[in-house]
Amino acid sequence: MIDQQKNRLLILSSNATKYAKLIAEAGLPALKITPAVSVAKAMSIADQSNILLAPPDLAYEILPTMTKLQWMQSTWAGVNKLLGEECRKDYLLTGVKGVFGSIMSEYVFCYILMHARKAFQCLELQKDREWKMPMPGLLRCKKIGIMGVGSIGIAIARTAKHFNMTTYGYSTSGTPAPEIDQMFNPDKILSFVGELDYLVTVLPQTLDTNHLINRAVLKAMKTDALLINVGRGNVLDENALIEALISEEIGGAVLDVFQQEPLPQSHPLWSTKGAIITSHKSALTYPEDIAPLFINNYKRFVARKELQFKIDFDRGY
Amino acid sequence: MIDQQKNRLLILSSNATKYAKLIAEAGLPALKITPAVSVAKAMSIADQSNILLAPPDLAYEILPTMTKLQWMQSTWAGVNKLLGEECRKDYLLTGVKGVFGSIMSEYVFCYILMHARKAFQCLELQKDREWKMPMPGLLRCKKIGIMGVGSIGIAIARTAKHFNMTTYGYSTSGTPAPEIDQMFNPDKILSFVGELDYLVTVLPQTLDTNHLINRAVLKAMKTDALLINVGRGNVLDENALIEALISEEIGGAVLDVFQQEPLPQSHPLWSTKGAIITSHKSALTYPEDIAPLFINNYKRFVARKELQFKIDFDRGY
Repeated sequence: MIDQQKNRLLILSSNATKYAKLIAEAGLPALKITPAVSVAKAMSIADQSNILLAPPDLAYEILPTMTKLQWMQSTWAGVNKLLGEECRKDYLLTGVKGVFGSIMSEYVFCYILMHARKAFQCLELQKDREWKMPMPGLLRCKKIGIMGVGSIGIAIARTAKHFNMTTYGYSTSGTPAPEIDQMFNPDKILSFVGELDYLVTVLPQTLDTNHLINRAVLKAMKTDALLINVGRGNVLDENALIEALISEEIGGAVLDVFQQEPLPQSHPLWSTKGAIITSHKSALTYPEDIAPLFINNYKRFVARKELQFKIDFDRGY
Repeated sequence: MIDQQKNRLLILSSNATKYAKLIAEAGLPALKITPAVSVAKAMSIADQSNILLAPPDLAYEILPTMTKLQWMQSTWAGVNKLLGEECRKDYLLTGVKGVFGSIMSEYVFCYILMHARKAFQCLELQKDREWKMPMPGLLRCKKIGIMGVGSIGIAIARTAKHFNMTTYGYSTSGTPAPEIDQMFNPDKILSFVGELDYLVTVLPQTLDTNHLINRAVLKAMKTDALLINVGRGNVLDENALIEALISEEIGGAVLDVFQQEPLPQSHPLWSTKGAIITSHKSALTYPEDIAPLFINNYKRFVARKELQFKIDFDRGY
């Protein structure tokens, strides 16, 4: 039974102060909030707290010591770290859903617009005080193909439509999806990629998606097409991509995810011409997104309602 | 009187081939199309053509020789070059309207997203094979202020709204405008700029807009705010901007227009820290935009209807 006078929330996060401020502003009843920016700082109050707000990697360290734990709200979508054999499963674990679409869309369109406008080339020319810069291209009427048409893929398609692009989608079933002009299934993958100016993958890591983008798919792309991978590293055969970039079979690649992360310092992709590398930062979670999920779930918690986005420890999601 | 069997269109443009293809595809009646990529190439048929499609600067060279000219469709918005005392005015001149909003919006959001995501810094870190990259920011909930809320300003605001930004507008009257959350007039300019993360000016060149963005306005801005000028160079006191950038009173500036263009090689802005220079390319016209205007006007021309976007030589617009 929950004693409403004594809910103690431990916030364990590098953004703990921000989270504490956002949650305090909500004026939630019977809640004492303690922020901690490191596991070491959290340890002293871990056994007095019945609620934890934390990313799974930090939570993993402190969960065994939280003797009064009733509920943990994760600040990340991926909670695999907390599902292992060795992990306790005697508490409510809630995850994160529905906040990544607009965030990933900002990443994708940052790099699509930069590519279209040749922004990096212009910056190099500025260093030479050169007024004569290349003609910029436009997104309008360009074709974007999106592999994976869940909520994130559809959010990307919605931004594409805002910029008057034509949207193609790819999924196992090939069934129609919102904001997508034309859908393709795996049988049609080569004709799908063959027409695109931009190919964006937001596919999850499964056996089906392993090296889905291989040499044949890259060869079928237009020579000025840009590949953007913001899903998972397994989708892309990185050696095939390096060959395709070196032989200029595609126009470029923007990669936020890799088969091995961090991308090893010796990896050739770092310096392959046409490759832009970012360090798995296309869909970070922000306190502004997660705090409202926590606040809503806390209200349900004190009202003894079922929490939203509850993880089933057996199914793993 | 127009002889419908003998309309001869001279297309004088560096994009003449593209224009010819787009117009030919429309299957217009009784039209012979001749593309020319230079004035020299156009000269031989100039006196046989009754219609001209050209930018004003090239048209200026060839207009005196076009003895059969009835109508010229400009490929640019600004037709000042054709309004001088020395210019003939015995033909129909039609201009360009309503195509720049989405084009300028792509420029503005390319640089806003790059700034938010620190894309240039990430590229420099990639050269060092450095996985540790800065936390990207988001547009969502950021405040953008737009000076000039005509069709271009509103198109920029519409994209801002797509990215869930808060939109402020500035105009002489301060009267409400579509897609703008809050309007400001000149009395409130300092409080207008004081709250902004992004200040975008699309103001035209008039006496009222001369050095509107001066030292006091720049001082009132937030220290991490980004200024973007895609209107006219006269709006900005460039010396004041250089001082503001050097003393880090604002976060950066993206400039597409200048008091003198081309920006002189010796100008300090080229290498002022935080200044990004592009060469008046935020709103180029594209054949895909202009060809439909021409096609529509040609249909009106053969039907003897009044043409759209006709320039009044006396008023100058």
